Amino acid sequence: MGEPVRSDRAGELRASDAGREVRLAGWVASRRDLGGVVFLVLRDASGEAQVVVDPQAVPAAGEVAKDLRDEYCITVSGTVRPRPDGTVNPGMATGEIEVAAADVRVLSPSDPLPFQIDDRADVDEVRRLQWRYLDLRRPRMKANLIARSRAVSAMRRSMEGQGFLEVETPTLIRSTPEGARDMLVPSRLRAGSFYALPQSPQLFKQLLMIGGVERYYQIARCYRDEDFRSDRQLEFAQLDLEGAFWGRDDVLATLESVMVEVARELRGVELSTPFPRLTYREAMARYGTDKPDVRLGMEICDLGGAFAGTGFKAFAGVLDAGGVVRGINAGPLGMGRSGLDALGDLAKGAGAKGLAWLVVEDDGSLRSPIAKFLGDDEAAAVKEAMGAGPGDTLLLVADTPEIAAPALDRVRRHLGEPDDPDELAFLWVIDFPVFEKAPDGSLAPAHHPFTSPHDVDEMGSDPEHALSHAYDLVLNGSELGSGSVRIHDPEVQRRVFEILGISDEEAESRFGWFLEALRYGTPPHAGFAVGIDRLVSILQGEPNIREVIPFPKTQTGADPLTKAPTPVAADQLAELGLEAAGEDADGVAGGDGAAGEGGGASAG
Amino acid sequence: MGEPVRSDRAGELRASDAGREVRLAGWVASRRDLGGVVFLVLRDASGEAQVVVDPQAVPAAGEVAKDLRDEYCITVSGTVRPRPDGTVNPGMATGEIEVAAADVRVLSPSDPLPFQIDDRADVDEVRRLQWRYLDLRRPRMKANLIARSRAVSAMRRSMEGQGFLEVETPTLIRSTPEGARDMLVPSRLRAGSFYALPQSPQLFKQLLMIGGVERYYQIARCYRDEDFRSDRQLEFAQLDLEGAFWGRDDVLATLESVMVEVARELRGVELSTPFPRLTYREAMARYGTDKPDVRLGMEICDLGGAFAGTGFKAFAGVLDAGGVVRGINAGPLGMGRSGLDALGDLAKGAGAKGLAWLVVEDDGSLRSPIAKFLGDDEAAAVKEAMGAGPGDTLLLVADTPEIAAPALDRVRRHLGEPDDPDELAFLWVIDFPVFEKAPDGSLAPAHHPFTSPHDVDEMGSDPEHALSHAYDLVLNGSELGSGSVRIHDPEVQRRVFEILGISDEEAESRFGWFLEALRYGTPPHAGFAVGIDRLVSILQGEPNIREVIPFPKTQTGADPLTKAPTPVAADQLAELGLEAAGEDADGVAGGDGAAGEGGGASAG
Repeated sequence: MGEPVRSDRAGELRASDAGREVRLAGWVASRRDLGGVVFLVLRDASGEAQVVVDPQAVPAAGEVAKDLRDEYCITVSGTVRPRPDGTVNPGMATGEIEVAAADVRVLSPSDPLPFQIDDRADVDEVRRLQWRYLDLRRPRMKANLIARSRAVSAMRRSMEGQGFLEVETPTLIRSTPEGARDMLVPSRLRAGSFYALPQSPQLFKQLLMIGGVERYYQIARCYRDEDFRSDRQLEFAQLDLEGAFWGRDDVLATLESVMVEVARELRGVELSTPFPRLTYREAMARYGTDKPDVRLGMEICDLGGAFAGTGFKAFAGVLDAGGVVRGINAGPLGMGRSGLDALGDLAKGAGAKGLAWLVVEDDGSLRSPIAKFLGDDEAAAVKEAMGAGPGDTLLLVADTPEIAAPALDRVRRHLGEPDDPDELAFLWVIDFPVFEKAPDGSLAPAHHPFTSPHDVDEMGSDPEHALSHAYDLVLNGSELGSGSVRIHDPEVQRRVFEILGISDEEAESRFGWFLEALRYGTPPHAGFAVGIDRLVSILQGEPNIREVIPFPKTQTGADPLTKAPTPVAADQLAELGLEAAGEDADGVAGGDGAAGEGGGASAG
Repeated sequence: MGEPVRSDRAGELRASDAGREVRLAGWVASRRDLGGVVFLVLRDASGEAQVVVDPQAVPAAGEVAKDLRDEYCITVSGTVRPRPDGTVNPGMATGEIEVAAADVRVLSPSDPLPFQIDDRADVDEVRRLQWRYLDLRRPRMKANLIARSRAVSAMRRSMEGQGFLEVETPTLIRSTPEGARDMLVPSRLRAGSFYALPQSPQLFKQLLMIGGVERYYQIARCYRDEDFRSDRQLEFAQLDLEGAFWGRDDVLATLESVMVEVARELRGVELSTPFPRLTYREAMARYGTDKPDVRLGMEICDLGGAFAGTGFKAFAGVLDAGGVVRGINAGPLGMGRSGLDALGDLAKGAGAKGLAWLVVEDDGSLRSPIAKFLGDDEAAAVKEAMGAGPGDTLLLVADTPEIAAPALDRVRRHLGEPDDPDELAFLWVIDFPVFEKAPDGSLAPAHHPFTSPHDVDEMGSDPEHALSHAYDLVLNGSELGSGSVRIHDPEVQRRVFEILGISDEEAESRFGWFLEALRYGTPPHAGFAVGIDRLVSILQGEPNIREVIPFPKTQTGADPLTKAPTPVAADQLAELGLEAAGEDADGVAGGDGAAGEGGGASAG
């Protein structure tokens, strides 16, 4: 197969290599022609090195160099030499040397580029995705790919060190009748039947526990066909794990070890463990959210005491109706009326009727549209409850707890900024309610029906207050993942279905095969899943998970590079026992123009 | 969350633990009642330990133990003590001790079992798959799960040690018009359009090379909707890798390092490298197959020289027509007529008109139905060519090379047995032809159209003899994987398409997005993919890949456990812009009885 394409990696050359004959291969990152002498920066995966082509000394190489353009793929043979005095580049790892070219060859030319291979260029995301292979050559994307690989490797190292077995679960699984968000795969051998792609390996990992595996993990590809939000993809990877004969605290400790390993790998920091734990109720009371960013300070105060018996009718009415008055001390905001109004709009956007503001003047008095309604005692009580001093701005919401919480969370996230942008604030939120309350007050199960309640009797008798052994991992205000202790007792499982309003017939048709499995000596078990995209994007300081996914889809599920998804021919559908709705068998499936559009789909 | 479920793992207790109070958790592997005293074997993931429950001493525990049945999940608290003299079990890792139970609790009872949790039980495979979670409790399956996890971990260790980056490629990709074997996924957001599940990450890994990754690997889930054979699954995992600025020999050396690591991990042996290399032509000539099992000896001899100018008309006719006479020396078979006839049937099954046999008598003469047609010189020449001595049986096929090769391969595999069943005979087959010849003599491309030919001119002018830079890895007669050097020059790619009869329009519609990518400075690159199921099954001595897949499908693509695939409701299809062929929109998609059958599908 001939001589090796290269002898050295460009980014690894150092002053000590001076005098060596080397052969490099890579891409032309830049090219300058200075009085006939051509200076190239040659880039490969290891980094960059400067190459000098002197047409006087090497006419043939000079000819080749003359026609080089950015991103040509080339090889260069030559001699490493120290750069001349005054031209050393301390900002470049190879800045002390250059390669005097003896031979330059083009392995593969490049068409003119759709955008510069450069972190500084601000390129529309659809264009970046359409030429993702060029986008991946940019330093930032390269760093993100490497970081993701290292993060996943660190996870595996930690899991294996903790005695977990990696087990692959199937991705062509049974679709459940209610699986409206299932992505379906038509079967060819059994035309008219379908597999589903897994939303998670949930039931298979529970089967592995029943199968005696005891410690399972997997980097699992999962699929969720939901309306795209800025941070979701149709397919995503999660660190999925489950253990038998253990409980919540074992899960939490295991995950903490994983996060310690990942943070060490990507950030070089030592996280301190255990991570703080907040119950769901604490989190909601203090931060108005179940995924608090505790770096931001500004904890929420309940002002029910301060306003007990208030003469201010707006607050009194809310409190009398069972609502709350809560607020945050936003500190010395120094905001004018329009800024404060904008904050009010934020709160209203979260459903609140309004946001009251009070500024503490130097003399301790309160400046506020509602100041005139407050008694001196009330004003003092509010200031005391919120630890407020001169200059502080206090922001209050009076509403139901379900509305006050997200409204204040939103304002808080808008105003807050971490003291140290590199801080990693991991925490656990535990003891989630079994049911979550919809805005209309109705109750809906907050988790999958295999989640263990604290007390199945309480779940039936007092659903609104019943708690489950479910827990979330939160980092800097983002949910990284969630898990729970599972039900291992078939009788408890039966009662939970009953309380959830799932009839025996329905349970049997949806999960019969799993319910049978529970009857063969099921160990107590618990588990967790961590979204890898979100974790890596936060650790990399990326605002968007698509930056850490090699080939993501846009928010409408399109791939601007390959133009997937595409229509398929009617005869291909016919083989699967299908046809396009409303068309006869000779019609072409799919509407025109349905494929290939990426436009407008990628911002955010 | 209360006290830990267990203090120790059952299989790790040793004589040195005598006197310790322990709490174990696991499954009742067996239960014997000896005069009121109950002896349990408790099994967990670590192994087994004996538990003794004496109802006299601990009446409550005795009551519980009385009702225990196989595979109940229990906890036992008690004291480790040496077994009484004469009852030590040297065949059990924990055979020197037993646990005197103070307390026994049932965590979860078990229904009567559909089959025994025991490697000795010979259970129908569909039953095993229907209760896979019980099947996985058997020692053999447990060992296979562990082996697979360790094998994949060893692969990753090797790849990372060699500087490869793990990159996840998408599994919802573009379907190509010719992708008859693509599994399709209807899009919901773009009803009428479809994603395909990847048959391999081929083009994405090539894009990563264009993107500058240089060293990529992934344990990739792949999908192939083909008629099931005994060794295929709809979904499977492969070690997928690709490198830039390297060639075939780099790929081979990289893979050898991976195999060394895996064999060390699972077998504790040191493979010697480099592995032997055979060209495709050598392999076909010497073994009649491109995946030879070299452990079996009995290389194929060409007897064209020995029979040149023979008077035996059957052979002369074949040779005159451009055919071959080839044979194997099967050694001292000592087979009677009926055995030899059965071998003939094997050869006929592979298309041969027959199998001639000759036995060398003690006096050197040949006993054979065709002996009378052979001259003395011919007989001597045959014996010499085949190194035959008294007692040896010689088996000959006279036919076209395309038929003689598989016929003799089949006979050879049937007769041969490795001297050492543990031997691992890895080898490379290199220099595959560009085209393979169908039985009707027509030529079809042997590899995907991105495979680099040795010489694109030769490919056009002499297609039958043109070779490609494609190579396979073979272990003990099974193909583990294949790879190739890829085309990186768009002009070569264009000519290859032309020779393959793919028009510009067709190339553009099928691969236009990829052909564009080739135009932006594509480095030379090459890669490989290794099927994990096959590798692990051979290393584990399993005849069937389903034994090393946690939750396999049957040969008809069914899962007897969950009953996937299943019909889905018409309204679910309608959301995807689909309906069942030949049914109106109110009909239920899918025929009755299409789902849930696993019967008859699993043998082999």
